[in-house]
Formats: sequence, C-alpha cells, structure tokens
Amino acid sequence: MFINSPKPPYYAAIFTSELKTGVNDDYSEMAEEMAALAEKQPGYLGIDSVRDADGLGITISYWQSEEDILQWKQNARHKVAQKLGLTQWYKTFSLRICKVERDRFFPNAK
Amino acid sequence: MFINSPKPPYYAAIFTSELKTGVNDDYSEMAEEMAALAEKQPGYLGIDSVRDADGLGITISYWQSEEDILQWKQNARHKVAQKLGLTQWYKTFSLRICKVERDRFFPNAK
Repeated sequence: MFINSPKPPYYAAIFTSELKTGVNDDYSEMAEEMAALAEKQPGYLGIDSVRDADGLGITISYWQSEEDILQWKQNARHKVAQKLGLTQWYKTFSLRICKVERDRFFPNAK
Repeated sequence: MFINSPKPPYYAAIFTSELKTGVNDDYSEMAEEMAALAEKQPGYLGIDSVRDADGLGITISYWQSEEDILQWKQNARHKVAQKLGLTQWYKTFSLRICKVERDRFFPNAK
C-alpha cells in the first residue's frame, strides 16, 4: 500500500475498470510492464491497485503534478497498452484526474 | 461502477485499507450499513469499492463538496464504524481527500 506520499498537494489518476471475462495472460503481462514503466517516469510517486474475483478493479497512480500525468499518458508504450485496453480487455472503464488536498495515514492501526 | 458523475469539479475520498486476517461478519455488515447510510447524506454522488482475496481494498466515495465529506465524517453512526475500523478491523489504512478536476468515461469499450 502506498503510504509514504509527500505533503499535499499532489496528483492522483484514478482508473476504475471492469475486465471482460476470459481476458488472457497478455493483459497481466502488460499490467506488470506498465506498473514497472510508470515507476521510471518523472514525477511518479506511487501506486495502489486492487482487482477482485469479478474483474472489477481500481488502480490509483500518484504524481507530483498534472503535467507528469499528461506526459505518462503520451508515453509510446503506454499508448499501445491504452489501445489494447480499449479494444480488447475492458468492458467499461473511467479515468479521473484529481488534486490530492489532504491525506492521513494509519500505518499501524491497533 | 460509478460512471454518471456530474461535471468536475467535485470531490473524492479515497480510502485504502488492509484488513486484518480473520475479520468477522461484523465488518461486512458495517460496511454494507455505511454504504447505505452514505447514500442518504447531502452531496453524496456515488461510490466505487473493490477488495481482493488478500484483504487489500480501495473504496472511493464521491461528493459534491469538501464540506459534504466533513459532514459525513461527523455522522454519529459513521464515527462508531471509524472507531471499530481503527481498533479492530484494519491493519493499515489511509484516507485522501481530492478535488476531481477532469474525468473521462468509456462505458462501452469494444
């Protein structure tokens, strides 16, 4: 879980999606590749990603600025992944770009 | 999946959490009660919630204003749930309050 974020404000890209049934290994490989590639981009802060057994998923990537998110969107390999997502993998998805204004962490709830 | 949000700006409360192992039915009942109660609060827009088999979860509730989120935080029954979460259910959690600046929806990806 992404806990050590810097002090707000920073940015979040909320990607909510529903996978088609029977999506193959290509999807998992690309998801791993994109997570590794995102880490190398300027302004990348961290990521949280959860998908349940029904194929519903939320992935939130955190960035220093909105400009960093726009640059990541334009990454050539990421664009290939976006196109495959749109045409092959997702039934439905949404993307929201947000400014994180406040945060609070409880790393060791008792 | 929450798709029909109004035009930005609006607000998101991102709650990321890791459940303790062996958490009982009380948790599921309270989670359902809170989802139903949140719907009745002023400014509530919608919710997306995913938890995987390892107990990692992301719940994002959407609101018209930051004030709506503050009011929901102060709800008496919600405060009971918050305390139980802190003391009994969660290993770790974080809360981020965000202003949604842009969004895009693909309700019928092909």
